[in-house]
Amino acid sequence: MENRFEISMLLDHYGSLLTEKQLNIMNLYYNEDLSLAEIAEINDTSRQAIYDLTKRCYKQLSTYESKLKLLARSNNRSDMKDMLVKKLKDEFNLDKEVVNHIEINIEDIINA
Amino acid sequence: MENRFEISMLLDHYGSLLTEKQLNIMNLYYNEDLSLAEIAEINDTSRQAIYDLTKRCYKQLSTYESKLKLLARSNNRSDMKDMLVKKLKDEFNLDKEVVNHIEINIEDIINA
Repeated sequence: MENRFEISMLLDHYGSLLTEKQLNIMNLYYNEDLSLAEIAEINDTSRQAIYDLTKRCYKQLSTYESKLKLLARSNNRSDMKDMLVKKLKDEFNLDKEVVNHIEINIEDIINA
Repeated sequence: MENRFEISMLLDHYGSLLTEKQLNIMNLYYNEDLSLAEIAEINDTSRQAIYDLTKRCYKQLSTYESKLKLLARSNNRSDMKDMLVKKLKDEFNLDKEVVNHIEINIEDIINA
């Protein structure tokens, strides 16, 4: 069963590997919440054609994730960051301000 | 002009998107330093066929990098880590041991 949030995340990571048209339609459907019928009208095509395109693209995005695992790795990095931050607070007893600075910087590194 | 080190890095990031055969040949040529003639013999094909395959794969890897920028982003993350570590030492005056711990953890996060 597809999950809109997961697909939106997959688009963040692999959207650049879709064609411009595919990416545009996927964004309208998964990020801007337009209906298949609305997107079909904009693209002067059938609802079924848009439905098929979204299914095909989802499959393609999932294949990229199964090979590159960018989404899983991004989630893993966040977990590792959380553990480090907890350790800096609880075991190393660093100042809250210093820990905040480190945390923000690591988040920037993860999102770079 | 292609750069063997860059191609080896591209293989690290995008090798999973090649076919098993392509990845195997690219590894033999760029990571294990076999000659085109040696790889051709192993694969029972011509030197020219192997040469063409390596060129085709390099182009494919470069296209992925131009779209996903995983290699550039990985280098950028390392630079950001270095800057943070320098700041923790020079401005926050944290213990060397604590800074080392943070640095190793951030490297693990980057490589995750």
